[in-house]
Amino acid sequence: MRILDFDKTIEKLVYFIQETTSESGFSRLVLNFSGGIDSATSISLAVKAIGAHNVYVLLQPYQNWHQDAVQRSWSLIEQLQIPTNHVSEIDIAPIVRSITSSLPSNIQSSTSPEPINNLDELRLGNIMARIRMIILFDRAKTLKALALGTENKTEHYLGYYTRFGDEASDIEPLRSLYKTEVYQVARRLGLPEEFIATPPTAGLWPGQTDEGEFGFTYQEADEVLHNLYDLHLSAEQLVERGISTETVYKVSKWVKQMEFKHHLPHHPPEPIEI
Amino acid sequence: MRILDFDKTIEKLVYFIQETTSESGFSRLVLNFSGGIDSATSISLAVKAIGAHNVYVLLQPYQNWHQDAVQRSWSLIEQLQIPTNHVSEIDIAPIVRSITSSLPSNIQSSTSPEPINNLDELRLGNIMARIRMIILFDRAKTLKALALGTENKTEHYLGYYTRFGDEASDIEPLRSLYKTEVYQVARRLGLPEEFIATPPTAGLWPGQTDEGEFGFTYQEADEVLHNLYDLHLSAEQLVERGISTETVYKVSKWVKQMEFKHHLPHHPPEPIEI
Repeated sequence: MRILDFDKTIEKLVYFIQETTSESGFSRLVLNFSGGIDSATSISLAVKAIGAHNVYVLLQPYQNWHQDAVQRSWSLIEQLQIPTNHVSEIDIAPIVRSITSSLPSNIQSSTSPEPINNLDELRLGNIMARIRMIILFDRAKTLKALALGTENKTEHYLGYYTRFGDEASDIEPLRSLYKTEVYQVARRLGLPEEFIATPPTAGLWPGQTDEGEFGFTYQEADEVLHNLYDLHLSAEQLVERGISTETVYKVSKWVKQMEFKHHLPHHPPEPIEI
Repeated sequence: MRILDFDKTIEKLVYFIQETTSESGFSRLVLNFSGGIDSATSISLAVKAIGAHNVYVLLQPYQNWHQDAVQRSWSLIEQLQIPTNHVSEIDIAPIVRSITSSLPSNIQSSTSPEPINNLDELRLGNIMARIRMIILFDRAKTLKALALGTENKTEHYLGYYTRFGDEASDIEPLRSLYKTEVYQVARRLGLPEEFIATPPTAGLWPGQTDEGEFGFTYQEADEVLHNLYDLHLSAEQLVERGISTETVYKVSKWVKQMEFKHHLPHHPPEPIEI
Protein backbone atom coordinates (compact mmCIF):
# COMPACT_ATOMS: atom_id res chain seq x y z
CA MET A 1 0.00 0.00 0.00
CA ARG A 2 1.20 3.52 -0.70
CA ILE A 3 2.42 5.57 2.28
CA LEU A 4 1.08 9.09 2.42
CA ASP A 5 2.45 12.26 3.94
CA PHE A 6 -0.72 13.03 5.87
CA ASP A 7 0.21 16.55 6.95
CA LYS A 8 0.86 17.61 3.37
CA THR A 9 -2.17 15.71 2.12
CA ILE A 10 -4.44 17.46 4.62
CA GLU A 11 -2.92 20.80 3.68
CA LYS A 12 -3.59 20.09 0.01
CA LEU A 13 -7.18 19.00 0.60
CA VAL A 14 -7.90 22.06 2.73
CA TYR A 15 -6.52 24.24 -0.04
CA PHE A 16 -8.60 22.32 -2.61
CA ILE A 17 -11.79 22.98 -0.62
CA GLN A 18 -10.96 26.68 -0.19
CA GLU A 19 -10.11 27.25 -3.82
CA THR A 20 -12.99 25.24 -5.27
CA THR A 21 -15.55 26.91 -3.05
CA SER A 22 -14.45 30.46 -3.78
CA GLU A 23 -13.73 29.89 -7.48
CA SER A 24 -17.27 28.54 -7.86
CA GLY A 25 -18.53 31.79 -6.37
CA PHE A 26 -19.58 30.29 -3.04
CA SER A 27 -18.53 30.76 0.55
CA ARG A 28 -20.53 27.99 2.24
CA LEU A 29 -20.68 24.21 2.30
CA VAL A 30 -23.51 21.97 3.41
CA LEU A 31 -23.32 18.23 4.00
CA ASN A 32 -25.24 15.20 5.17
CA PHE A 33 -23.55 14.03 8.35
CA SER A 34 -24.21 10.30 8.73
CA GLY A 35 -22.01 9.92 11.79
CA GLY A 36 -19.58 7.78 9.82
CA ILE A 37 -15.86 8.27 9.37
CA ASP A 38 -16.15 9.75 5.87
CA SER A 39 -18.59 12.49 6.72
CA ALA A 40 -16.81 13.21 10.03
CA THR A 41 -13.54 13.64 8.17
CA SER A 42 -15.19 15.75 5.47
CA ILE A 43 -16.82 18.06 7.96
CA SER A 44 -13.54 18.52 9.83
CA LEU A 45 -11.70 19.35 6.62
CA ALA A 46 -14.49 21.78 5.66
CA VAL A 47 -14.26 23.61 8.99
CA LYS A 48 -10.47 23.80 8.65
CA ALA A 49 -10.85 25.17 5.13
CA ILE A 50 -13.64 27.75 5.36
CA GLY A 51 -14.43 28.07 9.07
CA ALA A 52 -17.24 26.66 11.19
CA HIS A 53 -19.39 29.73 10.51
CA ASN A 54 -19.56 28.72 6.82
CA VAL A 55 -20.41 25.05 7.35
CA TYR A 56 -24.01 23.76 7.47
CA VAL A 57 -25.02 20.28 8.52
CA LEU A 58 -27.97 17.95 7.93
CA LEU A 59 -28.62 14.97 10.18
CA GLN A 60 -31.14 12.72 8.51
CA PRO A 61 -31.77 9.61 10.59
CA TYR A 62 -34.45 7.06 9.77
CA GLN A 63 -36.64 6.47 12.81
CA ASN A 64 -34.35 5.35 15.62
CA TRP A 65 -32.01 3.32 13.43
CA HIS A 66 -29.17 5.80 13.65
CA GLN A 67 -29.39 7.06 17.25
CA ASP A 68 -25.75 6.42 18.15
CA ALA A 69 -24.65 8.04 14.90
CA VAL A 70 -26.73 11.15 15.59
CA GLN A 71 -25.26 11.46 19.07
CA ARG A 72 -21.71 11.09 17.75
CA SER A 73 -22.49 13.69 15.10
CA TRP A 74 -23.79 16.25 17.57
CA SER A 75 -20.73 15.88 19.78
CA LEU A 76 -18.37 16.51 16.86
CA ILE A 77 -20.50 19.44 15.71
CA GLU A 78 -20.08 20.98 19.18
CA GLN A 79 -16.39 20.21 19.27
CA LEU A 80 -15.93 21.91 15.89
CA GLN A 81 -17.99 24.88 17.13
CA ILE A 82 -20.43 24.79 14.26
CA PRO A 83 -23.31 27.11 15.24
CA THR A 84 -26.33 25.08 16.41
CA ASN A 85 -28.61 26.99 14.06
CA HIS A 86 -26.54 25.69 11.15
CA VAL A 87 -27.65 22.15 11.96
CA SER A 88 -30.97 20.55 11.01
CA GLU A 89 -32.05 17.16 12.25
CA ILE A 90 -34.78 15.57 10.13
CA ASP A 91 -36.32 12.14 10.64
CA ILE A 92 -36.86 10.97 7.07
CA ALA A 93 -39.25 8.15 8.07
CA PRO A 94 -42.46 10.10 7.20
CA ILE A 95 -41.05 10.94 3.76
CA VAL A 96 -40.02 7.33 3.18
CA ARG A 97 -43.54 6.26 4.10
CA SER A 98 -45.15 8.80 1.78
CA ILE A 99 -43.11 7.34 -1.07
CA THR A 100 -43.48 3.66 -0.27
CA SER A 101 -47.23 4.09 0.16
CA SER A 102 -47.42 5.70 -3.30
CA LEU A 103 -45.53 2.96 -5.08
CA PRO A 104 -47.71 1.05 -7.52
CA SER A 105 -49.03 -2.20 -6.11
CA ASN A 106 -51.37 -3.02 -8.94
CA ILE A 107 -48.59 -3.68 -11.42
CA GLN A 108 -47.61 -7.27 -11.62
CA SER A 109 -44.68 -8.44 -13.59
CA SER A 110 -46.14 -10.04 -16.69
CA THR A 111 -43.77 -12.98 -16.52
CA SER A 112 -43.35 -13.65 -12.82
CA PRO A 113 -46.11 -14.26 -10.32
CA GLU A 114 -44.47 -12.81 -7.22
CA PRO A 115 -45.87 -9.56 -5.82
CA ILE A 116 -43.43 -6.78 -6.65
CA ASN A 117 -44.37 -4.23 -4.04
CA ASN A 118 -42.44 -5.86 -1.17
CA LEU A 119 -39.77 -3.32 -0.48
CA ASP A 120 -36.62 -5.16 0.26
CA GLU A 121 -33.78 -3.58 2.19
CA LEU A 122 -31.93 -2.48 -0.90
CA ARG A 123 -34.90 -0.62 -2.34
CA LEU A 124 -35.50 1.03 1.02
CA GLY A 125 -31.83 1.98 1.26
CA ASN A 126 -31.92 3.57 -2.19
CA ILE A 127 -35.06 5.54 -1.35
CA MET A 128 -33.49 6.77 1.89
CA ALA A 129 -30.26 7.85 0.19
CA ARG A 130 -32.19 9.70 -2.51
CA ILE A 131 -34.48 11.50 -0.06
CA ARG A 132 -31.36 12.70 1.77
CA MET A 133 -30.05 13.96 -1.58
CA ILE A 134 -33.24 15.93 -2.24
CA ILE A 135 -33.03 17.67 1.11
CA LEU A 136 -29.29 18.28 0.80
CA PHE A 137 -29.64 19.97 -2.58
CA ASP A 138 -32.61 22.01 -1.47
CA ARG A 139 -30.57 23.25 1.50
CA ALA A 140 -27.63 23.96 -0.80
CA LYS A 141 -29.82 26.04 -3.11
CA THR A 142 -31.45 27.90 -0.23
CA LEU A 143 -28.21 28.62 1.59
CA LYS A 144 -26.24 29.36 -1.59
CA ALA A 145 -23.86 26.61 -0.55
CA LEU A 146 -22.03 23.81 -2.34
CA ALA A 147 -23.16 20.27 -1.49
CA LEU A 148 -20.17 18.55 0.10
CA GLY A 149 -19.85 14.89 -0.87
CA THR A 150 -18.12 12.24 1.21
CA GLU A 151 -17.24 9.52 -1.29
CA ASN A 152 -13.83 7.92 -0.98
CA LYS A 153 -11.78 6.11 -3.63
CA THR A 154 -12.60 2.64 -2.31
CA GLU A 155 -16.36 3.23 -2.46
CA HIS A 156 -15.94 4.67 -5.91
CA TYR A 157 -14.20 1.58 -7.31
CA LEU A 158 -16.53 -0.78 -5.48
CA GLY A 159 -19.53 1.19 -6.74
CA TYR A 160 -20.67 1.17 -3.12
CA TYR A 161 -23.19 3.99 -3.28
CA THR A 162 -26.66 4.83 -4.51
CA ARG A 163 -26.67 6.57 -7.89
CA PHE A 164 -28.36 9.97 -7.49
CA GLY A 165 -28.29 9.38 -3.75
CA ASP A 166 -25.23 9.59 -1.51
CA GLU A 167 -22.96 9.97 -4.57
CA ALA A 168 -24.71 13.22 -5.58
CA SER A 169 -22.62 16.27 -4.67
CA ASP A 170 -20.81 19.37 -5.89
CA ILE A 171 -17.40 18.69 -4.35
CA GLU A 172 -15.72 15.46 -3.23
CA PRO A 173 -12.61 16.08 -1.09
CA LEU A 174 -12.08 12.41 -0.15
CA ARG A 175 -12.33 11.04 -3.69
CA SER A 176 -8.57 10.48 -3.99
CA LEU A 177 -8.21 8.67 -0.64
CA TYR A 178 -8.79 4.99 0.00
CA LYS A 179 -10.95 4.10 3.00
CA THR A 180 -7.98 3.08 5.15
CA GLU A 181 -6.34 6.40 4.27
CA VAL A 182 -9.46 8.28 5.34
CA TYR A 183 -8.99 6.66 8.76
CA GLN A 184 -5.42 7.87 8.89
CA VAL A 185 -6.45 11.41 7.92
CA ALA A 186 -9.16 11.23 10.61
CA ARG A 187 -6.60 10.28 13.25
CA ARG A 188 -4.29 13.07 12.12
CA LEU A 189 -7.18 15.54 12.38
CA GLY A 190 -7.76 14.34 15.94
CA LEU A 191 -11.28 13.01 15.40
CA PRO A 192 -12.83 11.35 18.48
CA GLU A 193 -12.02 7.66 18.84
CA GLU A 194 -15.69 6.66 18.58
CA PHE A 195 -15.72 7.59 14.89
CA ILE A 196 -12.66 5.46 14.29
CA ALA A 197 -13.89 2.53 16.38
CA THR A 198 -17.36 2.23 14.82
CA PRO A 199 -17.51 -0.32 11.98
CA PRO A 200 -18.39 1.39 8.68
CA THR A 201 -22.00 0.95 7.66
CA ALA A 202 -24.19 2.28 4.87
CA GLY A 203 -26.98 2.22 7.47
CA LEU A 204 -29.19 0.16 5.18
CA TRP A 205 -30.56 -1.83 8.08
CA PRO A 206 -29.77 -2.11 11.80
CA GLY A 207 -26.55 -4.03 12.34
CA GLN A 208 -25.44 -3.81 8.70
CA THR A 209 -21.70 -3.38 8.13
CA ASP A 210 -19.94 -2.67 4.83
CA GLU A 211 -17.30 -5.35 5.36
CA GLY A 212 -19.96 -7.90 6.24
CA GLU A 213 -21.65 -7.21 2.93
CA PHE A 214 -18.45 -7.26 0.89
CA GLY A 215 -17.04 -10.46 2.34
CA PHE A 216 -13.62 -8.78 2.54
CA THR A 217 -12.12 -6.01 4.67
CA TYR A 218 -11.40 -2.45 3.57
CA GLN A 219 -7.74 -3.19 4.26
CA GLU A 220 -7.89 -6.03 1.73
CA ALA A 221 -9.90 -4.01 -0.78
CA ASP A 222 -7.54 -1.03 -0.65
CA GLU A 223 -4.46 -3.19 -1.12
CA VAL A 224 -5.98 -4.84 -4.19
CA LEU A 225 -7.42 -1.64 -5.67
CA HIS A 226 -4.21 0.35 -5.21
CA ASN A 227 -2.15 -2.34 -6.90
CA LEU A 228 -4.62 -2.84 -9.75
CA TYR A 229 -5.58 0.74 -10.53
CA ASP A 230 -2.76 3.00 -9.34
CA LEU A 231 0.16 0.66 -10.06
CA HIS A 232 -1.56 -1.09 -12.98
CA LEU A 233 -0.41 -4.52 -11.88
CA SER A 234 -2.10 -7.70 -13.03
CA ALA A 235 -3.99 -10.12 -10.80
CA GLU A 236 -1.06 -12.54 -11.14
CA GLN A 237 1.40 -9.91 -9.95
CA LEU A 238 -0.77 -9.21 -6.90
CA VAL A 239 -0.66 -12.88 -5.95
CA GLU A 240 3.14 -12.85 -6.43
CA ARG A 241 3.23 -9.90 -4.02
CA GLY A 242 1.59 -12.05 -1.37
CA ILE A 243 -2.09 -11.12 -1.65
CA SER A 244 -4.28 -14.24 -1.52
CA THR A 245 -5.86 -15.40 -4.76
CA GLU A 246 -9.24 -15.44 -3.03
CA THR A 247 -8.99 -11.80 -1.95
CA VAL A 248 -7.90 -10.65 -5.41
CA TYR A 249 -10.77 -12.60 -6.92
CA LYS A 250 -13.43 -11.36 -4.53
CA VAL A 251 -12.47 -7.68 -4.79
CA SER A 252 -12.09 -7.77 -8.58
CA LYS A 253 -15.40 -9.51 -8.97
CA TRP A 254 -17.14 -6.84 -6.89
CA VAL A 255 -15.54 -4.08 -8.97
CA LYS A 256 -16.60 -5.72 -12.22
CA GLN A 257 -20.17 -6.25 -11.07
CA MET A 258 -20.51 -2.59 -10.11
CA GLU A 259 -18.57 -1.11 -13.01
CA PHE A 260 -21.77 -0.38 -14.95
CA LYS A 261 -22.54 2.44 -12.52
CA HIS A 262 -19.65 4.46 -13.96
CA HIS A 263 -20.77 3.99 -17.57
CA LEU A 264 -24.41 5.02 -17.41
CA PRO A 265 -26.41 6.39 -19.10
CA HIS A 266 -25.84 4.77 -22.48
CA HIS A 267 -25.56 7.33 -25.29
CA PRO A 268 -26.81 6.82 -28.83
CA PRO A 269 -24.79 7.30 -32.02
CA GLU A 270 -25.07 10.56 -33.96
CA PRO A 271 -28.06 10.70 -36.32
CA ILE A 272 -27.67 10.12 -40.07
CA GLU A 273 -27.43 13.26 -42.19
CA ILE A 274 -28.56 13.37 -45.80
CA MET B 1 -29.14 23.46 -39.63
CA ARG B 2 -28.16 19.92 -40.54
CA ILE B 3 -30.68 17.89 -42.54
CA LEU B 4 -31.26 14.37 -41.26
CA ASP B 5 -32.37 11.20 -42.96
CA PHE B 6 -35.15 10.51 -40.50
CA ASP B 7 -35.94 6.98 -41.64
CA LYS B 8 -32.34 5.88 -41.22
CA THR B 9 -32.02 7.83 -37.97
CA ILE B 10 -35.08 6.12 -36.50
CA GLU B 11 -33.79 2.74 -37.64
CA LYS B 12 -30.45 3.45 -35.96
CA LEU B 13 -32.06 4.58 -32.70
CA VAL B 14 -34.34 1.55 -32.61
CA TYR B 15 -31.32 -0.69 -33.08
CA PHE B 16 -29.45 1.26 -30.37
CA ILE B 17 -32.29 0.65 -27.90
CA GLN B 18 -32.51 -3.05 -28.77
CA GLU B 19 -28.79 -3.66 -28.51
CA THR B 20 -28.23 -1.62 -25.36
CA THR B 21 -31.10 -3.23 -23.53
CA SER B 22 -30.15 -6.80 -24.34
CA GLU B 23 -26.39 -6.27 -23.98
CA SER B 24 -27.02 -4.88 -20.48
CA GLY B 25 -28.87 -8.09 -19.67
CA PHE B 26 -32.33 -6.55 -19.64
CA SER B 27 -35.48 -7.00 -21.69
CA ARG B 28 -37.63 -4.18 -20.31
CA LEU B 29 -37.67 -0.39 -20.22
CA VAL B 30 -39.54 1.90 -17.85
CA LEU B 31 -39.97 5.64 -18.26
CA ASN B 32 -41.62 8.71 -16.79
CA PHE B 33 -44.14 9.89 -19.36
CA SER B 34 -44.63 13.63 -18.87
CA GLY B 35 -46.92 14.01 -21.87
CA GLY B 36 -44.30 16.11 -23.66
CA ILE B 37 -42.81 15.55 -27.08
CA ASP B 38 -39.56 14.03 -25.77
CA SER B 39 -41.14 11.33 -23.65
CA ALA B 40 -43.80 10.63 -26.31
CA THR B 41 -41.06 10.12 -28.90
CA SER B 42 -38.99 8.01 -26.50
CA ILE B 43 -41.89 5.75 -25.63
CA SER B 44 -42.73 5.24 -29.32
CA LEU B 45 -39.14 4.36 -30.13
CA ALA B 46 -39.08 1.99 -27.16
CA VAL B 47 -42.21 0.17 -28.33
CA LYS B 48 -40.78 -0.07 -31.85
CA ALA B 49 -37.55 -1.48 -30.43
CA ILE B 50 -38.61 -4.01 -27.81
CA GLY B 51 -42.39 -4.28 -28.12
CA ALA B 52 -45.24 -2.79 -26.07
CA HIS B 53 -45.25 -5.84 -23.77
CA ASN B 54 -41.77 -4.87 -22.56
CA VAL B 55 -42.44 -1.19 -21.93
CA TYR B 56 -43.57 0.16 -18.54
CA VAL B 57 -44.82 3.67 -17.92
CA LEU B 58 -45.08 6.03 -14.96
CA LEU B 59 -47.38 9.04 -15.04
CA GLN B 60 -46.48 11.33 -12.15
CA PRO B 61 -48.60 14.46 -12.20
CA TYR B 62 -48.55 17.04 -9.43
CA GLN B 63 -52.10 17.70 -8.23
CA ASN B 64 -54.11 18.83 -11.24
CA TRP B 65 -51.27 20.80 -12.87
CA HIS B 66 -50.72 18.29 -15.62
CA GLN B 67 -54.23 17.06 -16.43
CA ASP B 68 -54.03 17.66 -20.18
CA ALA B 69 -50.64 15.99 -20.28
CA VAL B 70 -51.94 12.91 -18.45
CA GLN B 71 -54.87 12.62 -20.89
CA ARG B 72 -52.55 12.92 -23.89
CA SER B 73 -50.29 10.31 -22.34
CA TRP B 74 -53.08 7.79 -21.78
CA SER B 75 -54.30 8.13 -25.36
CA LEU B 76 -50.83 7.43 -26.76
CA ILE B 77 -50.39 4.53 -24.35
CA GLU B 78 -53.60 3.03 -25.75
CA GLN B 79 -52.60 3.72 -29.32
CA LEU B 80 -49.27 1.98 -28.74
CA GLN B 81 -51.09 -0.92 -27.10
CA ILE B 82 -49.06 -0.85 -23.93
CA PRO B 83 -50.88 -3.10 -21.43
CA THR B 84 -52.83 -1.02 -18.90
CA ASN B 85 -51.29 -2.93 -16.01
CA HIS B 86 -47.88 -1.69 -17.17
CA VAL B 87 -48.91 1.87 -16.38
CA SER B 88 -48.94 3.53 -12.95
CA GLU B 89 -50.39 6.95 -12.32
CA ILE B 90 -49.13 8.55 -9.11
CA ASP B 91 -50.01 12.00 -7.83
CA ILE B 92 -46.74 13.15 -6.27
CA ALA B 93 -48.34 16.01 -4.31
CA PRO B 94 -48.47 14.11 -0.98
CA ILE B 95 -44.79 13.20 -1.32
CA VAL B 96 -43.88 16.80 -2.18
CA ARG B 97 -45.75 17.94 0.92
CA SER B 98 -44.06 15.39 3.15
CA ILE B 99 -40.71 16.78 2.01
CA THR B 100 -41.52 20.49 2.10
CA SER B 101 -43.03 20.12 5.57
CA SER B 102 -39.80 18.46 6.77
CA LEU B 103 -37.49 21.15 5.45
CA PRO B 104 -35.79 23.06 8.24
CA SER B 105 -37.49 26.35 9.04
CA ASN B 106 -35.52 27.17 12.13
CA ILE B 107 -32.28 27.75 10.26
CA GLN B 108 -31.68 31.35 9.37
CA SER B 109 -28.87 32.39 7.14
CA SER B 110 -26.31 33.94 9.43
CA THR B 111 -25.77 36.87 7.08
CA SER B 112 -29.21 37.53 5.63
CA PRO B 113 -32.39 38.17 7.59
CA GLU B 114 -34.96 36.79 5.13
CA PRO B 115 -36.76 33.55 5.99
CA ILE B 116 -35.34 30.79 3.85
CA ASN B 117 -38.17 28.31 3.99
CA ASN B 118 -40.26 29.94 1.25
CA LEU B 119 -40.15 27.36 -1.47
CA ASP B 120 -39.92 29.18 -4.73
CA GLU B 121 -40.96 27.58 -7.98
CA LEU B 122 -37.48 26.44 -8.85
CA ARG B 123 -37.01 24.60 -5.56
CA LEU B 124 -40.41 23.00 -5.94
CA GLY B 125 -39.58 21.98 -9.52
CA ASN B 126 -36.33 20.36 -8.41
CA ILE B 127 -38.07 18.45 -5.63
CA MET B 128 -40.74 17.24 -8.05
CA ALA B 129 -38.20 16.08 -10.64
CA ARG B 130 -36.21 14.23 -7.99
CA ILE B 131 -39.24 12.50 -6.49
CA ARG B 132 -40.09 11.27 -9.99
CA MET B 133 -36.54 9.94 -10.26
CA ILE B 134 -36.86 8.02 -6.98
CA ILE B 135 -40.03 6.32 -8.14
CA LEU B 136 -38.66 5.66 -11.63
CA PHE B 137 -35.55 3.93 -10.28
CA ASP B 138 -37.50 1.95 -7.74
CA ARG B 139 -39.76 0.70 -10.54
CA ALA B 140 -36.73 -0.07 -12.68
CA LYS B 141 -35.20 -2.14 -9.88
CA THR B 142 -38.44 -3.95 -9.14
CA LEU B 143 -39.26 -4.70 -12.76
CA LYS B 144 -35.65 -5.51 -13.69
CA ALA B 145 -35.91 -2.79 -16.33
CA LEU B 146 -33.63 -0.04 -17.57
CA ALA B 147 -34.72 3.52 -16.80
CA LEU B 148 -35.34 5.22 -20.14
CA GLY B 149 -34.28 8.87 -20.20
CA THR B 150 -35.71 11.52 -22.50
CA GLU B 151 -33.02 14.20 -22.65
CA ASN B 152 -32.31 15.76 -26.03
CA LYS B 153 -29.14 17.50 -27.23
CA THR B 154 -30.59 20.99 -26.87
CA GLU B 155 -31.56 20.47 -23.23
CA HIS B 156 -28.15 18.97 -22.61
CA TYR B 157 -26.26 22.02 -23.90
CA LEU B 158 -28.65 24.44 -22.24
CA GLY B 159 -28.34 22.51 -18.96
CA TYR B 160 -32.13 22.58 -18.91
CA TYR B 161 -32.76 19.81 -16.43
CA THR B 162 -32.61 19.00 -12.75
CA ARG B 163 -29.40 17.23 -11.76
CA PHE B 164 -30.33 13.84 -10.20
CA GLY B 165 -33.89 14.48 -11.37
CA ASP B 166 -35.14 14.26 -14.94
CA GLU B 167 -31.56 13.79 -16.21
CA ALA B 168 -31.14 10.57 -14.22
CA SER B 169 -31.46 7.50 -16.42
CA ASP B 170 -29.81 4.36 -17.77
CA ILE B 171 -30.27 5.00 -21.49
CA GLU B 172 -30.81 8.21 -23.47
CA PRO B 173 -31.96 7.56 -27.06
CA LEU B 174 -32.65 11.24 -27.88
CA ARG B 175 -29.33 12.57 -26.62
CA SER B 176 -27.94 13.08 -30.14
CA LEU B 177 -31.01 14.91 -31.49
CA TYR B 178 -31.73 18.61 -31.17
CA LYS B 179 -35.21 19.56 -29.97
CA THR B 180 -36.40 20.57 -33.45
CA GLU B 181 -35.13 17.21 -34.73
CA VAL B 182 -37.09 15.39 -32.04
CA TYR B 183 -40.21 17.04 -33.50
CA GLN B 184 -39.31 15.78 -36.95
CA VAL B 185 -38.75 12.25 -35.63
CA ALA B 186 -42.09 12.49 -33.82
CA ARG B 187 -43.87 13.44 -37.07
CA ARG B 188 -42.15 10.61 -38.88
CA LEU B 189 -43.26 8.19 -36.18
CA GLY B 190 -46.83 9.43 -36.67
CA LEU B 191 -47.32 10.80 -33.16
CA PRO B 192 -50.68 12.52 -32.60
CA GLU B 193 -50.73 16.20 -33.52
CA GLU B 194 -51.55 17.27 -29.94
CA PHE B 195 -48.03 16.28 -28.82
CA ILE B 196 -46.54 18.36 -31.61
CA ALA B 197 -48.84 21.34 -31.07
CA THR B 198 -48.36 21.66 -27.30
CA PRO B 199 -45.65 24.18 -26.37
CA PRO B 200 -42.78 22.45 -24.55
CA THR B 201 -42.82 22.95 -20.80
CA ALA B 202 -40.81 21.61 -17.89
CA GLY B 203 -44.10 21.75 -15.97
CA LEU B 204 -42.51 23.80 -13.21
CA TRP B 205 -45.66 25.85 -12.74
CA PRO B 206 -48.97 26.16 -14.57
CA GLY B 207 -48.55 28.04 -17.85
CA GLN B 208 -44.75 27.76 -17.86
CA THR B 209 -43.12 27.27 -21.27
CA ASP B 210 -39.48 26.50 -21.99
CA GLU B 211 -39.17 29.15 -24.68
CA GLY B 212 -40.74 31.76 -22.43
CA GLU B 213 -38.08 31.04 -19.85
CA PHE B 214 -35.20 31.02 -22.32
CA GLY B 215 -36.12 34.22 -24.12
CA PHE B 216 -35.35 32.48 -27.43
CA THR B 217 -37.00 29.70 -29.44
CA TYR B 218 -35.81 26.12 -29.78
CA GLN B 219 -35.38 26.83 -33.50
CA GLU B 220 -32.97 29.64 -32.65
CA ALA B 221 -31.19 27.62 -29.97
CA ASP B 222 -30.66 24.60 -32.24
CA GLU B 223 -29.29 26.72 -35.08
CA VAL B 224 -26.77 28.34 -32.75
CA LEU B 225 -25.82 25.14 -30.90
CA HIS B 226 -25.35 23.12 -34.08
CA ASN B 227 -23.10 25.76 -35.60
CA LEU B 228 -21.09 26.27 -32.42
CA TYR B 229 -20.69 22.69 -31.23
CA ASP B 230 -21.03 20.41 -34.25
CA LEU B 231 -19.46 22.68 -36.86
CA HIS B 232 -17.13 24.42 -34.39
CA LEU B 233 -17.81 27.86 -35.87
CA SER B 234 -17.13 31.05 -33.94
CA ALA B 235 -19.79 33.52 -32.81
CA GLU B 236 -18.58 35.90 -35.53
CA GLN B 237 -19.04 33.25 -38.21
CA LEU B 238 -22.59 32.61 -37.00
CA VAL B 239 -23.42 36.29 -37.43
CA GLU B 240 -21.85 36.21 -40.92
CA ARG B 241 -24.18 33.29 -41.68
CA GLY B 242 -27.15 35.49 -40.90
CA ILE B 243 -27.97 34.59 -37.28
CA SER B 244 -28.68 37.73 -35.27
CA THR B 245 -26.04 38.89 -32.82
CA GLU B 246 -28.65 39.01 -30.10
CA THR B 247 -29.66 35.37 -30.61
CA VAL B 248 -26.06 34.17 -30.63
CA TYR B 249 -25.41 36.16 -27.47
CA LYS B 250 -28.50 34.98 -25.61
CA VAL B 251 -28.04 31.28 -26.40
CA SER B 252 -24.29 31.32 -25.68
CA LYS B 253 -24.85 33.12 -22.40
CA TRP B 254 -27.39 30.49 -21.31
CA VAL B 255 -24.98 27.69 -22.21
CA LYS B 256 -22.14 29.32 -20.28
CA GLN B 257 -24.26 29.91 -17.19
CA MET B 258 -25.34 26.27 -17.09
CA GLU B 259 -22.03 24.71 -18.09
CA PHE B 260 -21.11 24.03 -14.46
CA LYS B 261 -23.70 21.23 -14.40
CA HIS B 262 -21.51 19.16 -16.71
CA HIS B 263 -18.39 19.61 -14.61
CA LEU B 264 -19.59 18.64 -11.16
CA PRO B 265 -18.58 17.28 -8.74
CA HIS B 266 -15.16 18.84 -8.31
CA HIS B 267 -12.44 16.25 -7.72
CA PRO B 268 -9.40 16.73 -5.51
CA PRO B 269 -5.77 16.19 -6.52
CA GLU B 270 -4.05 12.91 -5.66
CA PRO B 271 -2.65 12.78 -2.10
CA ILE B 272 1.06 13.31 -1.40
CA GLU B 273 3.12 10.15 -0.98
CA ILE B 274 6.23 10.03 1.15
